[in-house]
Amino acid sequence: MPKDRTHNFEPLTPLKFLQRSATVFGDRVAVVDGNRRWTYRELLDRSARQAGLLRSVGVAPGDRVAVLAPNTHLMVEAHFGVPFAGAVLVTLNTRLDPRELARILDHAECSVLLCDPDFAATAEQAFASTDADIQLVVADQGYEALLARSVPWMELPDDEDAVLSLNYTSGTTGAPKGVMYQHRGAYLQSLAVNSHFGITASSVYLWTLPMFHCNGWCLPWAVTAAGGTHICLPAVRPREVWAAVDEYRVTHLCAAPTVLSSLCADPAAHTIDDRTLSVAVGGAPPAPALISRATDLGIAITHLYGLTETYGPLAICDWRREWDELDRDEQAVLRARQGVGNVIAEQIRVVDESGADVPSDGRTVGEVAVRGNNVMLGYYRDEAATAEAIPDGWFRTGDLAVMHPDNYLQIRDRAKDIIISGGENISSVEVESALAAHPDVLEAAVIALPHDHWGERPVAVVTPVAGATVNSDEIRAWLRGSLAGFKIPDSVVAVDELPKTASGKIRKKELREDWASLGAG
Amino acid sequence: MPKDRTHNFEPLTPLKFLQRSATVFGDRVAVVDGNRRWTYRELLDRSARQAGLLRSVGVAPGDRVAVLAPNTHLMVEAHFGVPFAGAVLVTLNTRLDPRELARILDHAECSVLLCDPDFAATAEQAFASTDADIQLVVADQGYEALLARSVPWMELPDDEDAVLSLNYTSGTTGAPKGVMYQHRGAYLQSLAVNSHFGITASSVYLWTLPMFHCNGWCLPWAVTAAGGTHICLPAVRPREVWAAVDEYRVTHLCAAPTVLSSLCADPAAHTIDDRTLSVAVGGAPPAPALISRATDLGIAITHLYGLTETYGPLAICDWRREWDELDRDEQAVLRARQGVGNVIAEQIRVVDESGADVPSDGRTVGEVAVRGNNVMLGYYRDEAATAEAIPDGWFRTGDLAVMHPDNYLQIRDRAKDIIISGGENISSVEVESALAAHPDVLEAAVIALPHDHWGERPVAVVTPVAGATVNSDEIRAWLRGSLAGFKIPDSVVAVDELPKTASGKIRKKELREDWASLGAG
Repeated sequence: MPKDRTHNFEPLTPLKFLQRSATVFGDRVAVVDGNRRWTYRELLDRSARQAGLLRSVGVAPGDRVAVLAPNTHLMVEAHFGVPFAGAVLVTLNTRLDPRELARILDHAECSVLLCDPDFAATAEQAFASTDADIQLVVADQGYEALLARSVPWMELPDDEDAVLSLNYTSGTTGAPKGVMYQHRGAYLQSLAVNSHFGITASSVYLWTLPMFHCNGWCLPWAVTAAGGTHICLPAVRPREVWAAVDEYRVTHLCAAPTVLSSLCADPAAHTIDDRTLSVAVGGAPPAPALISRATDLGIAITHLYGLTETYGPLAICDWRREWDELDRDEQAVLRARQGVGNVIAEQIRVVDESGADVPSDGRTVGEVAVRGNNVMLGYYRDEAATAEAIPDGWFRTGDLAVMHPDNYLQIRDRAKDIIISGGENISSVEVESALAAHPDVLEAAVIALPHDHWGERPVAVVTPVAGATVNSDEIRAWLRGSLAGFKIPDSVVAVDELPKTASGKIRKKELREDWASLGAG
Repeated sequence: MPKDRTHNFEPLTPLKFLQRSATVFGDRVAVVDGNRRWTYRELLDRSARQAGLLRSVGVAPGDRVAVLAPNTHLMVEAHFGVPFAGAVLVTLNTRLDPRELARILDHAECSVLLCDPDFAATAEQAFASTDADIQLVVADQGYEALLARSVPWMELPDDEDAVLSLNYTSGTTGAPKGVMYQHRGAYLQSLAVNSHFGITASSVYLWTLPMFHCNGWCLPWAVTAAGGTHICLPAVRPREVWAAVDEYRVTHLCAAPTVLSSLCADPAAHTIDDRTLSVAVGGAPPAPALISRATDLGIAITHLYGLTETYGPLAICDWRREWDELDRDEQAVLRARQGVGNVIAEQIRVVDESGADVPSDGRTVGEVAVRGNNVMLGYYRDEAATAEAIPDGWFRTGDLAVMHPDNYLQIRDRAKDIIISGGENISSVEVESALAAHPDVLEAAVIALPHDHWGERPVAVVTPVAGATVNSDEIRAWLRGSLAGFKIPDSVVAVDELPKTASGKIRKKELREDWASLGAG
């Protein structure tokens, strides 16, 4: 890149978004966290001081700095402050136990751990499991005093391909891997996310999606780019979400279907009629019934699909005006598809084991393969895993899908979630969608249990809607209206709560272990 | 750039937008032109065949290919077809005379001129003024036959910094200069434009802004990126604009204030109440009175400011929710400002002659200086002009502005439009805004005429609203309510029409020549 083109070449970095917003929206509220609020000018100042503080304790360019915090102002600030220090941001899943945290701190060779006061004890326990020399910085009153004395530091990358952050995958299977994001990819993905979600200077974004998950789908940078307002919410409880939605006149939030389902079912749920509440739904396909329920409340759903390895949202199912004329059931079916590559992500394929495209017939299942500026650089310090995931220049997502004739992607399952019964493939997603349409069912997970005759058989674990009772036989009979006989679960078991990952994905491995005894044959 | 990063590095080019939309929105209507319409799949096919045709007549990578056409489907196709051939797109202003066109064809050393049948005679006349060997390709029935037989060709740039197009400045002063756009800049600007204008897959964009002007502010690429629909309109007449707005349920269009003013004043004007019609207004500051009139019709105005050298829109005055509570006059004043750098354009300054920032006090006038990915590479084959325009790594726009304390930019005038009367600076924009608020005035241009005593004095040339009569003395008396005495024009002259450039800017130079005899003293 010719370096003399200073007038028209600038490295793409999301750090520029904060600098711009602090200049042009200096007095706007950037972050609300409980009773505290900071303007964009203050957010820039605090982030730059955080960077200065990190430098003063010895952080050098390229160092990894970990952050352990729920969705508080500290997390928003760290998305700018850590890279302003020239360091690589490593956000930690707050639901991991100290031993798991220690493994990540060791693997990433972090020099500093910045943590929320509520997690200081957890951090100390994690340190007990590692021999590494890691400095702990607790964001308490003492931190505030240090920040006030700190000299602001703002280092921008010379190279837009420099590593910006590591995102350790939430790991429903296997060992955690550190996904490397780059400044260029995060910049472009932020613009794409804003464009598809419709986030503007007038938007109020509620933080329900954990920022430690895929850097919150790049939204710490994207909302800042637009000059919208971040509303922090440390814990996601439906009543508090609704209270925040009303108090701050929230316009946007993200939710896994399980989160959206709880929101819609909560007694505090009510119709939003003075604005549009846009909810980006990802992590798993929302059942058509859930889409209908949300629509009744005046919630506009954008369904999307993505992975940690693709900076979050990869494919988006934007509303299309051709669908206006369809009836609601047809609309729900179309909207439940994962959609099409977002505006910067045009290279999405569904491939067979040889890496060739499967027919775009809506039936032939293959693996989703992608490449482009929105694909991770690779797994940090794991060349073998990187080479395995990217065997031929195309990243394999591990997700099984069909490509429809209109080139819309529809995920069938994670490879491990396909149930093979008597040689027939059963999509657990399809069965879950059918179950979610039942009036008594709030959430459903369908798992494969071993079966002597059929090899595997589906079993459903569901949570009932408030006040309802789940009757296995009644539901199984009801399912015959929408599913082939071999797809109907052998039993439908009700539980109070489904085990979930931080990003709201149901932990099916755990369910399979818990319910193995149900296997009949 | 490491070339082995094929999985996650792709050159940024707006050509990718069409490839994506043809894949994911293949059967959507991409272009409507009169009774004809083409889907995105067809637009890609026609563009690729245009590229194949150009290659077959000898166009080589890096060649310049000129296009002379109004806002027809040919222009949309050429924005993809010419670069697909590996060539550089040179769009020609259809209002230039043959001699001016020949100068540009010569300067750009074009090898082919692709032209609309209606301009074939003009093209032949232009060829008569040049010795260059340029092939003429007329887009008539014969062209359609050639296209049908052509082999599709899609060449994507290896280097995102490659030159994509040349835009010869409309030249209200001086010699035309060929502004070089690059693939990277056009890609980023397209994303920014969509984000600020709110263009999505559901948008219907009406082509009133000429595509030959700054590549239509990058909208041929941006609307295509979103998967919206292009509605071509070869000539901009208010009644036909309104007819198209209704027939196609247009959601977006761009307009110079003069165009918007004609639209609002036309008998066909009516309130849009079943959707939002968003109008991006640039080229000159819209008067607060015009903003009010448009708002009454249900039109949402986004005011912006840009230049050919900045890929069109550089600063945007997005609506801010803090302004909701203000009264309409206050809102109009805030909205009439040029705003803040768009999301990819954060480096905008107002500088004095030494290149230092003027105070951000809303009063001190300086020159707008910018740099960033949205600034041209330079002027084609004109190193002297490039060096003069970019003396120190910052491009000087030639526009005089103040920076407000909130870092909003407000243009005062082109340097040459400041009127210096008795040592006092008079902003012609300010006087024009005051005039536009008068109920009898449709459009106003204020020019400086020589004056023996004062040096210069302002004179106003206005067009009356339909049915009204302009009385110079009455208007001058009325202006005393809003302007200092020395700013009130010595006379107010009514004309049927103001002379304008292709982009809707009033040709003040021409007015000054026409009205020089009014100068008194």
